[in-house]
Formats: sequence, structure tokens, C-alpha cells
Amino acid sequence: MPAAFDPGLIDSLTDTALAMADAAAVETMRFFRSGDLDTRSKGAVFDPVTAGDRAGELAMRAVLHDRRPDDGVLGEELGAQAGTTGLTWVLDPIDGTRAYLAGAPTWGTLIAVNDGGAPILGLIDQPHTGERFFGSPRGAWLNDRWSRRAIAARPPRPLAEAIVMTTFPEVGTPEEGAAFRAVAERAQLTRYGLDCYAYALVAAGHVDLVIEAGLESYDIQGPMAVVAAAGGCVSDWQGGPAEAGGRVIAAANREIHAEALALLAQAK
Amino acid sequence: MPAAFDPGLIDSLTDTALAMADAAAVETMRFFRSGDLDTRSKGAVFDPVTAGDRAGELAMRAVLHDRRPDDGVLGEELGAQAGTTGLTWVLDPIDGTRAYLAGAPTWGTLIAVNDGGAPILGLIDQPHTGERFFGSPRGAWLNDRWSRRAIAARPPRPLAEAIVMTTFPEVGTPEEGAAFRAVAERAQLTRYGLDCYAYALVAAGHVDLVIEAGLESYDIQGPMAVVAAAGGCVSDWQGGPAEAGGRVIAAANREIHAEALALLAQAK
Repeated sequence: MPAAFDPGLIDSLTDTALAMADAAAVETMRFFRSGDLDTRSKGAVFDPVTAGDRAGELAMRAVLHDRRPDDGVLGEELGAQAGTTGLTWVLDPIDGTRAYLAGAPTWGTLIAVNDGGAPILGLIDQPHTGERFFGSPRGAWLNDRWSRRAIAARPPRPLAEAIVMTTFPEVGTPEEGAAFRAVAERAQLTRYGLDCYAYALVAAGHVDLVIEAGLESYDIQGPMAVVAAAGGCVSDWQGGPAEAGGRVIAAANREIHAEALALLAQAK
Repeated sequence: MPAAFDPGLIDSLTDTALAMADAAAVETMRFFRSGDLDTRSKGAVFDPVTAGDRAGELAMRAVLHDRRPDDGVLGEELGAQAGTTGLTWVLDPIDGTRAYLAGAPTWGTLIAVNDGGAPILGLIDQPHTGERFFGSPRGAWLNDRWSRRAIAARPPRPLAEAIVMTTFPEVGTPEEGAAFRAVAERAQLTRYGLDCYAYALVAAGHVDLVIEAGLESYDIQGPMAVVAAAGGCVSDWQGGPAEAGGRVIAAANREIHAEALALLAQAK
């Protein structure tokens, strides 16, 4: 059994991840929808996204320092710090900063633990809706306002009956946009603008595919862990590892993953 | 004072609207994210949107029949029924059916009371996030998980600092899409895919403009009432009445409304 699957270690990582998400939520919610009217009247330029992002990451790092000081950290805001355990926490305090700025509840806090290869545990936390999507070697669950329950990605269905999501209509480069449309045009329904929440919907069994480009590692490692634990399949557009970001596809199951990859491969 | 602004009448309409939204939420939430796996295994075609839409409207009509049987009704699902009071309730149990189908929390239940001219009272209810945005001649408020508080649309800012939203990237016809982009390309930020939630964000002071086309009257009358009560401005793309739907612009204030209308007018 790899060290990462030791039950005691998974308990420790789970408790730490949840405490980090709780700590981040205090900070991100403090600035979410806080408005910039008051700060404008003071004549100062105030960016609530930057403030929430930095405060959220500092709060998460403080929890980690207390609980697991020897793990490494890679954060969107404050960079990388090596550890000695072989485990690295990959943190994005506010994924979907444009949504956050617009008051939309589709941003989230992303946390992953990478064992040097893949993210083995992660979460997508949406504190405004009160939803936390979590994945580990023990499975995937959603904790929301009503209950805590297991979640699972959708079973296979033809692409013609599938729901596809991406955040930006242009996706990325013109070539990347064309590749996305090669898949989306064959799907039942395409939706835009949901940021990390789209990956949560794959894990929870509501959406079949999320296809994006230009991602950073901290954008995708948390979602990867959740989607994989829910039975889904995350890779780059060639079917290779997606940990580094770039062009990413998250699929509810291997069948629709293969169908979409074949279409993406035809694009330049 | 017009009849519609009689305090006792506003009380009655408010209580009725809130009771209708409560009743609709029971039905829409019953089917939201309910999945179609079980129903598929029975071999029957089951459409959770249609089921939630119909059940939600029936529930609202039952409340109305009990409380104010002489008012007229215009519903998205069950059509029009004339009344004798001069007041007509305009109902959309699930605005944003595609979002509902995809499990996204951007759909809403829309309710408006029209006095024969304009919607004088209305609400946008998002039962999954637990947010209810309400507007009447007494003002606008948001009731969410944390509090009930007054809301107000944003004060004027230049378009270059504004946030613009629409649901579908193509907006409508190619001409309508070009007109939208004439505004959006000059804004700070454009976001897609939020359905009626985008209008709620205008009313709550987070977004400056929503520009859409191809709307029905029941898509816009609830949002109109909420945005107007919050100090915003809703019209068609020529600055005329928007009650009938079609091409609609909702603006946080008169200044940015005028700036956007001038750009929309240049488009064909």
C-alpha cells in the first residue's frame, strides 16, 4: 500500500484539508460582495479579489503550518515551498476571480494534496452556496446545507445526450476554441461561465464533460482529485497527465472521455 | 396614489408573492439535481425540467387561487387567465431551464405583479442558494441564509470599469450578438451563463449591465420589478418598455443605461 493510502495519513490529510477550507472561507467570504463603494470614497484603489485571495491563502498556510509543517506547498498567490514528506499541498484560494468580482457563486477554493505524481486528495469549496465537494482514496462526497452524502459521476451516455461546460466561450486560442466546438456541437447542451463549479458538477453526476485550456496546476489539481474519486476521468487533451494544467478535459466516465478525446484530436 | 401603491394592497401582494415562491421552491427543489438515472432504468423518458416547471407553476397558482382569486395570471407553463382586479401575476417557475438541467445554481423562480402597465412588484428566488431578491414600491431587499437586508444597484461608473452579463455568448441573431459585443468589448469584464441570477446581481449592486435578446414577458417582468426597486433601469434596446420581452437591457443606473443604449443603437 503506498504511503498516501495509509488510513491514518488519509485521516490527517482530510482533517487538515477541511480545516484549511474553513479558514479560507472566513477570509474569502469577508471580501465577497463586499463592494468597492466605501473603499472608493477613501480615494484608495482596493481590489477585493487580491485581498480575498491573499488572505485566504495565508489562512490556509497557517493551518498547514500548525498541523503538517513538513509538507510542501504550492499556492497561487504565495508561490512554492518545498517539504520533506513527499506530499505537496496545491492551493488556489479563489478560483474564478472574475466570478468572485461579479458576485457570482461559481468561484471556489481549491485544495489538493499531491504525492509527487498525482493529486490523491482534494476539495472544491463554495462557501457562499455552502457546498463542499471532497475526494480522497476513500471516495467522494458533497457536504451542503442539507446533508453530507456520497457523490458519483454520471454513467456513460452518448455525447448527443451529454452536457458540456467550459468557462470562457473562446476557450483559449482559436484552435482550442475550434477543438472545443467540435465536441460541444455534438452535445445536447453547452454551458459557460461556471469556473471550478463545473468540475464539481461532473463529480456530483450532473455534467458529462468540462473542457478547458490555459489552466495552471493549482486550477486543476483539486478538481482532479474530486472528479477522480467520484469515478470520473481527468487528463490533458491527448489523454496524458493533467496535473500541470494547460489543456484539460474532465469526463464523467471513460467512455465519454474517449469519445471527446477522439474529437479533440482531430482539431489542430 | 395609484391603487397599486395602497399600503394594504402592497402587503397583500407581498405576502402572496412570498407564499407563492415558497410553494414553488418545494416543487422545483424536489426535481433539481434529482438525476434521471432511476427514471431511465424504468424505460420511461422523464424530463425533470418539465416536471419541475409544471409542478412549480401549479403550486403558485394554487396559492394565488386561495389568496387573491380575482387577479389575472400569465404563466410560462399554463398560459393566461384573465382577472377582474386589473392586476396580473406573471410567473416563470424555472427561468434558466438549461442551468437547472445541468445542476447549476443560476436558475430561478420569477414572479411579478403587473398593474396593466408595468410590473410593480416582483421577485427572483434561488432556492438552492437560499437567496430571494424582492422589489416593490417600498424598495428592494435580499433575503439569504444570513440576513434580510436592503439592496441597491451600483452608482454610476464608466463603462470601461463596468461588469456586463448575458446568458448565451451568441446573445441572439448575428446582429444582436454584434450589438452586445459593441458594449461588452468596452467593459471591464463580461460574464456568461447566469440566467435570471444576472439581473439579481444588478439589483444587489454587483453587476452594471445585463443585455439579452429573445426574452418572453415572463422572463423579464420579475427581474424588472426587482431591478427597478433597487434603483436600476430596465428597457428595451431603444429605451422603450421592456415588459413584453424581446431585446432587453437592465442597467444599474441611468448613466450607464444611456451609455450602453447609445452603443446598442449603432448596431443594426
